[in-house]
Amino acid sequence: MGDNGKQHWIGFDLGGTKMLCVLFDHKFNVVASLRKKTKADEGAPDGVERMIDMIERVLEEGHLDRANLGGIGFGCPGPLDLDNGIVLEAPNLGWKNVELKNILQKKFKTPVTVANDVDAGTYGEYCFGAAQKARCVVGVFPGTGIGGGCVYEGRLLRGKTGSCMEIGHTMATSNGRLCGCGRRGCLETVASRLAIAAECAMAVYRGEAPVLQRLAGTDISKIRSGVLAEAIKGGDKVVEKLVRHAAKHLGFGVGNVINLMDPDVVVLGGGLVEAMEEIILEEVREAVSKRAMTAFVKSVNILPAKLGDMATAMGAAALVAKGDDKK
Amino acid sequence: MGDNGKQHWIGFDLGGTKMLCVLFDHKFNVVASLRKKTKADEGAPDGVERMIDMIERVLEEGHLDRANLGGIGFGCPGPLDLDNGIVLEAPNLGWKNVELKNILQKKFKTPVTVANDVDAGTYGEYCFGAAQKARCVVGVFPGTGIGGGCVYEGRLLRGKTGSCMEIGHTMATSNGRLCGCGRRGCLETVASRLAIAAECAMAVYRGEAPVLQRLAGTDISKIRSGVLAEAIKGGDKVVEKLVRHAAKHLGFGVGNVINLMDPDVVVLGGGLVEAMEEIILEEVREAVSKRAMTAFVKSVNILPAKLGDMATAMGAAALVAKGDDKK
Repeated sequence: MGDNGKQHWIGFDLGGTKMLCVLFDHKFNVVASLRKKTKADEGAPDGVERMIDMIERVLEEGHLDRANLGGIGFGCPGPLDLDNGIVLEAPNLGWKNVELKNILQKKFKTPVTVANDVDAGTYGEYCFGAAQKARCVVGVFPGTGIGGGCVYEGRLLRGKTGSCMEIGHTMATSNGRLCGCGRRGCLETVASRLAIAAECAMAVYRGEAPVLQRLAGTDISKIRSGVLAEAIKGGDKVVEKLVRHAAKHLGFGVGNVINLMDPDVVVLGGGLVEAMEEIILEEVREAVSKRAMTAFVKSVNILPAKLGDMATAMGAAALVAKGDDKK
Repeated sequence: MGDNGKQHWIGFDLGGTKMLCVLFDHKFNVVASLRKKTKADEGAPDGVERMIDMIERVLEEGHLDRANLGGIGFGCPGPLDLDNGIVLEAPNLGWKNVELKNILQKKFKTPVTVANDVDAGTYGEYCFGAAQKARCVVGVFPGTGIGGGCVYEGRLLRGKTGSCMEIGHTMATSNGRLCGCGRRGCLETVASRLAIAAECAMAVYRGEAPVLQRLAGTDISKIRSGVLAEAIKGGDKVVEKLVRHAAKHLGFGVGNVINLMDPDVVVLGGGLVEAMEEIILEEVREAVSKRAMTAFVKSVNILPAKLGDMATAMGAAALVAKGDDKK
């Protein structure tokens, strides 16, 4: 039995590779959680079925009276229709126009909120993690891409119908590499895990990174954040150099956002930061101090995320608990 | 006599070269206005005296019963302490730590709000100009520098104690010209009136801009926005080329802000835009379509400001009328 009369919340992190479903009590303690591979290739109807199954299983595991479920919050990648809770397109999942809110609300007869995964993660860090009570917090999550989010005076900033704070697609160099968005020189093409992996693969090919050679070879899909960290620990100087270079440019991008938003806190999270926190924080802080306005540099704290891979689920649950679909 | 019982408002635009004081009725129609040179070299105490005098004169001219004055709003350059209404530093005025709010509130016994001039201008365009009712509006005002402001769901975004949206100090090139802020490659060093003037002065020196040569010579302080426009009309191709180049980079900077904020409206104002609206709008729109995310490009309107040099005074008056010091 759940706490009688005290509402519980479900936070669901729908990722390209894994799904995480968490049941929280009214104090946002974890009651039950379940992790599964996304199996994106099985398509949307199948995927939604598996999500429903996961939710039912954490409800069972938590012995929760359905009447005590206050709502379900989702954190999803890709362009969304926030008002209507629709996943418009999730290239990593192969999903298009999935009416998540509609389907899940009918199924569980409880409020459902759909948010961008990085927005939810930033909101999670604001509510429970590194950025509690900050007037303005910018979340920056470099991983395969680079996501961003902003909570301003308690509210998630949002775009017209979807997410905003696309820091990964601000310009790092005026004529750089081709980005997944079709443009050139986006920050993602310089400072994401994928960009670093591509540069490191070249170093491996040239015989300059023997440890990484052994761990991953030249296949960039195998050069994950943890592998990069291991190669650096193993002594591959060129890998450290390339990671530091990327983190410096990430810092310039963060500096630009600081000049626009003057945040109290910038939270850095995601795979790259989790694997190489010290190096990345150091380079980002240094670059920000060069790039951002002096007064803003003085007032901003650049901190590592605290919630790890729970951030999105916690934030999504907090968003539905807040009861504001439109944030 | 003022409208009995209906509050009037004063908006005051404190600029580096000129001051504009406007008395508005309860519908924000202009009742009286006064314009004066700032005479910054006379120092702060003298400056404040002259401001008080201007306010008293528009009140007289408007035959306003003091009891009907609802408040005074100031738009000021430089770093401000918004909470306490202090002009911390205004390099163009030579002012430091002027307690504008305190002094004026005592003098006129009415609420006083102090805002950044570009923020006030953006708020003015939101309330009365090109961006009425927009969910999110970004104001970009290229002049001697490049100022920015943002009204998000009816509220001015602000920094910790002062202004934010320093779009002029976001990075345009990773290793560009020295900026007034001490950094290199800021957008201001590429796309401000001053940056354009410096490039044009070189063209004049090389004998490539005969019309501009005649109008202004090689003194960049004389190469004002209106002069640039005249030189283009007169046939100086190189001047047009340099203005277009600057506007293109302005557009890239605007594109970055669009990728972060996903605004409904970007309002372009300020001296450069007023003088060469067509050229600048064309280049900015073109660059934004290349730089910003496709979905954001589709949903954004890039519009010229409507209020001209009344924007800051109107916005400042609207801010004090709104009754929210902290915005």
